[in-house]
Amino acid sequence: MKLALIGFGTVGRGTYDILKARENILKDTVGGLEIAYIVASDRSAERLGKELPEKVVTAKDYDAVLEEVDIVAEATGAMDMAYDYMKRALEAGVAVVTANKAAVSAHFEELNGIAEEKDVPFLFEAAVGGGIPVLTPLRGLCLENEIESVQGILNGTCNYLINAMFKEGAEYDATLKLCQELGYAEQDPTDDVEGFDTRRKLHLLIEMAFGHVDGDAIPTRGIAQLNGDIVSFLNEKGQKVKLVASAKPVEDGIEAVVEPVILDAADSLAILPDAINQVNVKGSFVGDLAFTGPGAGKEPTGNAVVADIISAATKSAMPLLKRGVKKLAPVKGRYLVAKKLSGDVAEREEGDFTITREISREELLSLIDKDTFFARIESQSL
Amino acid sequence: MKLALIGFGTVGRGTYDILKARENILKDTVGGLEIAYIVASDRSAERLGKELPEKVVTAKDYDAVLEEVDIVAEATGAMDMAYDYMKRALEAGVAVVTANKAAVSAHFEELNGIAEEKDVPFLFEAAVGGGIPVLTPLRGLCLENEIESVQGILNGTCNYLINAMFKEGAEYDATLKLCQELGYAEQDPTDDVEGFDTRRKLHLLIEMAFGHVDGDAIPTRGIAQLNGDIVSFLNEKGQKVKLVASAKPVEDGIEAVVEPVILDAADSLAILPDAINQVNVKGSFVGDLAFTGPGAGKEPTGNAVVADIISAATKSAMPLLKRGVKKLAPVKGRYLVAKKLSGDVAEREEGDFTITREISREELLSLIDKDTFFARIESQSL
Repeated sequence: MKLALIGFGTVGRGTYDILKARENILKDTVGGLEIAYIVASDRSAERLGKELPEKVVTAKDYDAVLEEVDIVAEATGAMDMAYDYMKRALEAGVAVVTANKAAVSAHFEELNGIAEEKDVPFLFEAAVGGGIPVLTPLRGLCLENEIESVQGILNGTCNYLINAMFKEGAEYDATLKLCQELGYAEQDPTDDVEGFDTRRKLHLLIEMAFGHVDGDAIPTRGIAQLNGDIVSFLNEKGQKVKLVASAKPVEDGIEAVVEPVILDAADSLAILPDAINQVNVKGSFVGDLAFTGPGAGKEPTGNAVVADIISAATKSAMPLLKRGVKKLAPVKGRYLVAKKLSGDVAEREEGDFTITREISREELLSLIDKDTFFARIESQSL
Repeated sequence: MKLALIGFGTVGRGTYDILKARENILKDTVGGLEIAYIVASDRSAERLGKELPEKVVTAKDYDAVLEEVDIVAEATGAMDMAYDYMKRALEAGVAVVTANKAAVSAHFEELNGIAEEKDVPFLFEAAVGGGIPVLTPLRGLCLENEIESVQGILNGTCNYLINAMFKEGAEYDATLKLCQELGYAEQDPTDDVEGFDTRRKLHLLIEMAFGHVDGDAIPTRGIAQLNGDIVSFLNEKGQKVKLVASAKPVEDGIEAVVEPVILDAADSLAILPDAINQVNVKGSFVGDLAFTGPGAGKEPTGNAVVADIISAATKSAMPLLKRGVKKLAPVKGRYLVAKKLSGDVAEREEGDFTITREISREELLSLIDKDTFFARIESQSL
């Protein structure tokens, strides 16, 4: 099997290193995977050409590359360019493997449709939960079960940041700065802390487990409103907050949301350390499953890309069920709100906080402004 | 694809129910799976023949069945008979799927050898961790990684019993009796509480991840020595004990052991509720992964059997690496012992308990009798 690796940043390098390290094992077991081409930007190509024994080419050679290879591993991290690379590969009947959650989330229906039409693998294990093998088992679970819910912590930056705030009792801004210094948060942290990265991953889980929805329309709130007072209040009560993505089928569609959630401090999502991710899947027959591991990083993500490359090479991925278009249903829940709320939405007040009765998220949003912290209560003890 | 289902007890029924419930989906996606035969005991065959639309036959028809089917799903729970059914199927070039950890553990090398020689799938996802998809992803992980350790809680009875003791502060005998009444423990609980069931599952993980070892020789200690005093002592210190299976490659072989282990109360294995199982896998590239879910039960186990049937039908399981014979290496650790130990093995005493320095398990056993509780300390805070 001949492979073209597109992009040689963190994920590309991780993928390359693992393929090289496991070369003999892959030769013995799946018949060998030759890295035939590395497609790089004009700027990188010259440097990489000196560094790597493989043939390094640029975008202008891509059509010729597609004629020769069986699998494209897209690892650019780009958006439009990645979409173009993937689409052209699938249209040419070449299998596509990618870690690119943004491009897959934005173009899932189209890319998956072309892959089905051309009957070639289109795999993106690394796009959700980094190194965790979760999308691959989820494909199988969808054949055996109606999926009753998916839920998870899908963003390592937020998990690390929240854990640090609970451990150190520090304020949000100081902790974010620390995370940036340690490399756990980007210089522009918007995508992570506002929940957009989590939303894209939840969108992919929904596409696999439930059907096609508008990913950008999934209600999303991040963690930027969290502060030391909220952490102290929760710590005293043996509670924790995490940024949780959830989706489940309900009567009028899919109830999906990304928002802070209050969990009992001993919940498996609450104790999730460092930047670890976890995906919980509930199947009608299998019951509650959890998949836990590193959600990012060169080698974990590379591991997932290589796993997909092997799947594509051996055509062993389970088919995705065709599920049609689904509507996003209104979200409701009991909420902890960092504000005194008048009227009948309050179940009770605790100091400066309100605990609401079960209300629609929309109603809640109408009562607060964008700087007011709120979190859905899933804990049994608040 | 034609399937013969052998045995119609809990696992057989679960498998049958799921195949029936998902019949149309499987037809659309993997091309259909016909349950052509159900092989039952003489005693059951007549009853089942009236109950089921499928052709119910007995052992005497098995050779004829093998000529017609592509896959045998063995769900008898028996030992020698199950081995015979599986061996004959594999020799006839028929794929074998099983939930039978005892028969697979006892005959792994031979059965897997025949399967490789005949190039037919031999799959046993349901034999470790019940419904949890773990052996299937582990096959892939072994291609991409050197596996650095496997560890887990692999027996739901022990997990339930220990959780109940910690929750209720009750004694071992009373809790076991309660577990038996609730159906969480067998009338003869030996296999579970002495760790033998856990040992078989650890053995299968070792065969997949590291190489061939004598499963019966894995050092094993169960939980029957646990009592209320030990639970109180650990509760006071924020510690918990669980029956943990562990294996890792070391210089002189594979260090493998099943024994009670002290964990920090917030460890993911410590908080594992009810009869839930968890398998932790550490890969050289991917890092630490955990797979969590129901370790037993009709539908979870049936789910895993059906997953393997689909894998066998589509020939999509990853190949197992050939790893050769490995030696079991001596086990060592720091231990909590419910006895005052004289001499230089003690790091310190706490009341009636001794906490040892790192010693060999063999030395520890020479200092205590079979009724003395001990547990290896993995917690960082004891």
